[in-house]
Amino acid sequence: MDQLSVKTGKRQELMDITEETQQYISNNGYDHGIITIYCPHTTAALTINEGADPSVGRDILVSLEKLIPHRGDYRHTEGNSDAHIKTSLVGPSVQVIVEEGRLMLGTWQKIFFAEFDGPRTRKVWIKWIEG
Amino acid sequence: MDQLSVKTGKRQELMDITEETQQYISNNGYDHGIITIYCPHTTAALTINEGADPSVGRDILVSLEKLIPHRGDYRHTEGNSDAHIKTSLVGPSVQVIVEEGRLMLGTWQKIFFAEFDGPRTRKVWIKWIEG
Amino acid sequence: MDQLSVKTGKRQELMDITEETQQYISNNGYDHGIITIYCPHTTAALTINEGADPSVGRDILVSLEKLIPHRGDYRHTEGNSDAHIKTSLVGPSVQVIVEEGRLMLGTWQKIFFAEFDGPRTRKVWIKWIEG
Repeated sequence: MDQLSVKTGKRQELMDITEETQQYISNNGYDHGIITIYCPHTTAALTINEGADPSVGRDILVSLEKLIPHRGDYRHTEGNSDAHIKTSLVGPSVQVIVEEGRLMLGTWQKIFFAEFDGPRTRKVWIKWIEG
Repeated sequence: MDQLSVKTGKRQELMDITEETQQYISNNGYDHGIITIYCPHTTAALTINEGADPSVGRDILVSLEKLIPHRGDYRHTEGNSDAHIKTSLVGPSVQVIVEEGRLMLGTWQKIFFAEFDGPRTRKVWIKWIEG
Repeated sequence: MDQLSVKTGKRQELMDITEETQQYISNNGYDHGIITIYCPHTTAALTINEGADPSVGRDILVSLEKLIPHRGDYRHTEGNSDAHIKTSLVGPSVQVIVEEGRLMLGTWQKIFFAEFDGPRTRKVWIKWIEG
């Protein structure tokens, strides 16, 4: 297992970590298998979506915010219940196929770290399974 | 890695791809392991849910539509922001255990390709990990 | 593949299954790899979130209930459409990295069985992949 570091700059943000992930695979000489990218935090998640137009990420965050507002009927007293809820909806990890040393992503796909309670310095764990 | 083709017929649709997935496993003589089924598109996802009553799929799509309407306060100008958002909520892949050459699904479970911006011809990527 | 049994006590509930999962890994002497925890039901899911403050789980369930109410414009006649929809949003499985025989969870993370249509006796399937 290895660890990447992600420094987010806003309370909510989708950060593209595709390059770092590909770099990690290339540096280790991994060839064929599956890479699991895992978020060890409870107010941030991982997702795969369009990376070409930043409006897509903006639309995702604004829509989630409308459905699960920052301030609401919450009992958790740390003021970040919305971030916990979004985390369970988006999910803690993504799995991406690797062939001939390349992340197999669709034409428009990028891997995003989804920050819901930043800005913070965050960790991402990466695990390689050959196959 | 291999590829299945899925032809969707509506803008939004849950297409049962369980049979094709099982066929793929059988054709390859796979025995014990995990199969990852991955959607390389950014306006479609994969999910597992009840397959016996088609009303379940209808209820899923109608509810998602209510929460994330086709037309809304979106900046992405292609008119399919709702599809991108739903994709991040439902998720880009599913993992299913395989034992003795059979997909280990619960009694009512089927694997669905979730189309959110069709109709289109779509790809699904499949990766086998033995274990 | 192995099976855990989970007995839920309410219609909706997040049950912490971290201990049982760690016990399973320890009993089998598993060392390095990935564990897939899979829910074979269509009205329950798996998620990872904060386990220290039970209010987080309560906030997740109450917010989901607000978005996808128990009674609504549903066609599925069993009265549990909301549970099916929540299941597709939260997801059927989680993958957790294992290092030196320990589940690699973040400081605040616990693994939860998310019951959306209980109380019932439920099954959880576990699959180990070494790597």
